[in-house]
Amino acid sequence: MTAFPEGRPYAEALDADDPLAGFRDRFERDGEPLIYLDGNSLGPLPRATRARIAEVVGDEWGAGLVRSWARWIDLPLQVGDTLGEHLIGAAPGQVAVCDSTTVNLYKLAWAALDARPGRSVIVTDDDNFPTDRYVLEGIAAQRGCELRIIRTDMDRGIDAGAVAAAADERTALVSLSHVAYRSGALADMAEITRIVHDAGALVLWDLCHSAGAVPVRLDACGADLAVGCTYKYLNAGPGAPAFLYVRRDLQPGLRQPVWGWFGRRDQFGMGQGYQPVAGIGQYLTGTPQVIGTVAVQEGVRLLAEAGIGPLRAKAVALTGYLIGLADAWLEGTGITVASPREDARRGAHVTLAHPEAWRISQTLIAGGVIGDYRTPDRLRLGPVPIFTRFTDVWDAMAVLRQVMADKMYLNAPQARSVVT
Amino acid sequence: MTAFPEGRPYAEALDADDPLAGFRDRFERDGEPLIYLDGNSLGPLPRATRARIAEVVGDEWGAGLVRSWARWIDLPLQVGDTLGEHLIGAAPGQVAVCDSTTVNLYKLAWAALDARPGRSVIVTDDDNFPTDRYVLEGIAAQRGCELRIIRTDMDRGIDAGAVAAAADERTALVSLSHVAYRSGALADMAEITRIVHDAGALVLWDLCHSAGAVPVRLDACGADLAVGCTYKYLNAGPGAPAFLYVRRDLQPGLRQPVWGWFGRRDQFGMGQGYQPVAGIGQYLTGTPQVIGTVAVQEGVRLLAEAGIGPLRAKAVALTGYLIGLADAWLEGTGITVASPREDARRGAHVTLAHPEAWRISQTLIAGGVIGDYRTPDRLRLGPVPIFTRFTDVWDAMAVLRQVMADKMYLNAPQARSVVT
Repeated sequence: MTAFPEGRPYAEALDADDPLAGFRDRFERDGEPLIYLDGNSLGPLPRATRARIAEVVGDEWGAGLVRSWARWIDLPLQVGDTLGEHLIGAAPGQVAVCDSTTVNLYKLAWAALDARPGRSVIVTDDDNFPTDRYVLEGIAAQRGCELRIIRTDMDRGIDAGAVAAAADERTALVSLSHVAYRSGALADMAEITRIVHDAGALVLWDLCHSAGAVPVRLDACGADLAVGCTYKYLNAGPGAPAFLYVRRDLQPGLRQPVWGWFGRRDQFGMGQGYQPVAGIGQYLTGTPQVIGTVAVQEGVRLLAEAGIGPLRAKAVALTGYLIGLADAWLEGTGITVASPREDARRGAHVTLAHPEAWRISQTLIAGGVIGDYRTPDRLRLGPVPIFTRFTDVWDAMAVLRQVMADKMYLNAPQARSVVT
Repeated sequence: MTAFPEGRPYAEALDADDPLAGFRDRFERDGEPLIYLDGNSLGPLPRATRARIAEVVGDEWGAGLVRSWARWIDLPLQVGDTLGEHLIGAAPGQVAVCDSTTVNLYKLAWAALDARPGRSVIVTDDDNFPTDRYVLEGIAAQRGCELRIIRTDMDRGIDAGAVAAAADERTALVSLSHVAYRSGALADMAEITRIVHDAGALVLWDLCHSAGAVPVRLDACGADLAVGCTYKYLNAGPGAPAFLYVRRDLQPGLRQPVWGWFGRRDQFGMGQGYQPVAGIGQYLTGTPQVIGTVAVQEGVRLLAEAGIGPLRAKAVALTGYLIGLADAWLEGTGITVASPREDARRGAHVTLAHPEAWRISQTLIAGGVIGDYRTPDRLRLGPVPIFTRFTDVWDAMAVLRQVMADKMYLNAPQARSVVT
């Protein structure tokens, strides 16, 4: 017996009451019939973005040619400000859209070490996203630092107590994901930031799985540094540029290692010797990818119009509903819920565990339900708050119930996914 | 008295004989009437690229969603191989399309220093492109190296003898541009590479102003490392991803510093600990920008179809013709040719010097002739070999002759350009 009616009419009623329902039509949906629960990997295409890219390509590049740099040159910081204001709680002048998450993480982690001379420990956790762990490992190797790796419960996410135990007077930097990429567990940014600061270290948050899905309050939490991608909940397309945040008062004291011309004072003076610009612009490096940056702008605008509050409310409702259906329908199938059940501890996706998760995910895809697999035995289902209907969740779970009841996944091949 | 008839009919005859003339229709030309001589800054938009971007956005991202990563994931190395084969003389497995020129330069220069332990000098020249100088300066500061800067004649470009004098037994890396960004002077890659190797150092070539405009023979010259952008002669659009080259036998011994997940063995195993993939893939970092990478693919295909031999022949003819008209028409105006006159020492653009170069460039733009200004007193005119007609050169020089004869530039404001 669930706390809600198990039939599809209940989902239909939730859709009818959904204040964000109209936003679904703001996206291209040429791929349907399809239930897309992988916005946590690659968000869908906003119609406005498709039109805007065509305009940038045809009118601005094609006709405007090099003259269009006059309108492009300020985009990285303009879009950063908009993103900061609407989605991650950052006042203007602290966010830039540039490079990839990987490169931005490298830049900021390196800068953080310089800002804590005499400290030589970097702390992260074994459930942090792979590229984060690898980049930090590389920097530790290059600078002769120790990389201290907290062992984290894969289902529960990073624990504030474990951070307190790991961060000490030798710690220069603690780098963690705000929402865990596998379980969707949501870290307590305010509490962990406080703990890191108590140890005298800097904190660097990876917002890849939270920006656009969970309200982020960088300024209010006193966070030092952050990075994140834009191709998940910001719906900016495959490989669109990432963003970075450096708290304003830290900016003059930090120096990122890639001294590119876009971060230099009087860039087009092209003079001898590097002198960083004042402000967040010093964290830019090379020529920005314009098409990707305008896609970020459109994606952020759309989310801002919906509002992060309503988006979060819907994400909680969608994932709570999904978990409720899993409890009701999947008992005895071997599937367990591997995401936090408390709304306040969960991002916008849900992870289910089953030894055959890979084959189950492939069978779902063949059945028109797109989720993804993550090692070692996880099936991620990520409703897109601005796009996914409650009936989509119901339909997807009905397919999954059938797949499990009939053990249809036993017909799928054993292999690995190539999904980012 | 010039060596050719000064009238426009001669230009018309050259156009009529141009074997590449048909390629002009492969580009969008919505911005005309306009004479575009700034392909050395931002190349024009190929029609195929416009269509391909629309397809990637609408069909692959919009409809295919995350499933399209199966076709995207290998693009950085696939496109790198094509670029290597057709444009820069690199056998497969040595070129990757990724990040920006700035970030790639950082990665490779850092890796080169690791490969020459005990040596602590980086050599470059003061006429190298600004971002190159800044990045090398940053790395030198971070690693306690000396940055040794050759003073180069701005008009003549880097001299092999000066490199021989600067590179010694303490030198780990020599990093230079193949074609100088201001004068268009073409360095002797084979000779300088030999000199650098004689000193026991590695050489890193910046091909931004030569790839797609000048035949580059990285393998044949025994070059070690190279980087370059794709938004100039490769016509891949504003901020499209750059490329890098690492000679095959060097790949196992070098390790770039940004240990991102796209460079890790068994990427989607997402395991603990970084292990670089074998081969050029280890130089990838974060999630590749897909739209920009397909634009590189289209741009390279078009140039490959034209052939780098015919493109080079036309570049020599266009720039030689431009210099001839400058000699015939601009005497006594104060304008001098500030590019090498020998064809073999010149890339695909011509630079003119005049104390009022900034105002002259603005006046030309107002008159429909797009070139660009470079400090301190240079006017760059870059015909696009695959696109520009001889009549365009004639028409542009006729406008310039008028601007100079009437001193029209005195009406233009004094200011600085914002052109990359």
